[in-house]
Amino acid sequence: MSGSFTLRPIGVLHTPWTTIETCPRNGRQPDPPPVCTVQVFADFIDGLKDIEGFSHLILLYWLGQAKMPRLRFKPPFDDVERGLFTTRAPHRPNPIGLSVVAFDGMDGADRLKVRYLDCVDGTMLLDIKPYLPSTDAEPDATMGWLAPFRTRTRS
Amino acid sequence: MSGSFTLRPIGVLHTPWTTIETCPRNGRQPDPPPVCTVQVFADFIDGLKDIEGFSHLILLYWLGQAKMPRLRFKPPFDDVERGLFTTRAPHRPNPIGLSVVAFDGMDGADRLKVRYLDCVDGTMLLDIKPYLPSTDAEPDATMGWLAPFRTRTRS
Repeated sequence: MSGSFTLRPIGVLHTPWTTIETCPRNGRQPDPPPVCTVQVFADFIDGLKDIEGFSHLILLYWLGQAKMPRLRFKPPFDDVERGLFTTRAPHRPNPIGLSVVAFDGMDGADRLKVRYLDCVDGTMLLDIKPYLPSTDAEPDATMGWLAPFRTRTRS
Repeated sequence: MSGSFTLRPIGVLHTPWTTIETCPRNGRQPDPPPVCTVQVFADFIDGLKDIEGFSHLILLYWLGQAKMPRLRFKPPFDDVERGLFTTRAPHRPNPIGLSVVAFDGMDGADRLKVRYLDCVDGTMLLDIKPYLPSTDAEPDATMGWLAPFRTRTRS
């Protein structure tokens, strides 16, 4: 019944960070956040029609450098062992990364300019979804043990 | 360089909808939204430690009933052909579903009570991420051609 599922890359992410060690903790920590490039492979460009009107997008990508997941571990900025599913650590049973990015327009037919990425250069893109505040924005959500480590609100 | 990637389910989603045709357009359309259950397989329960303090979660799941993707298509509620990546349609090159859900607490060690799911009963769970308003909430985002079809804001 369960089985397994296969993914294929639909593009590649170009960022300033060449190693995991130099990546920011999240895409909103760099000030200012650098403009990164989402390159969509030729086979999928047709799916970008009408994307101009969206200010934000959700990107899913494959965390190819993730290690074996540990279900409990001490985050680098905390002293207590936490459950993996309460963290955004890359080392997960299914290492799919997710970023809500600001969309700054196209750079040619196959490239999107975005801000707030935090992954290594060359990361493989899996999906682009439109960000819908009506279903995706929960500004008053509480964030449990992560609350003291919250990234400052952007101006 | 690109290759392909393999996923494995870490749990299963229990919802009231047994066919795609009866699923709501999104998880915030039913009023009131039903409480659904996220069953996490035994091997992954340890990763749920400390989850109680989070009011919202991001669930990723496998849209196993998705058809072949069409990169441009007419959405059921519009007359114009739109780019797939400006929609949340399930028929995608990598059919990964994403829902921001309200977390209503545990029901035993392996089950989470959530609201705002919209997928069929038995959908396979791929990942649970904590929802962080500091990086995930963009309440003022613009939603392009989808704006006139926006789901009403919940009270």
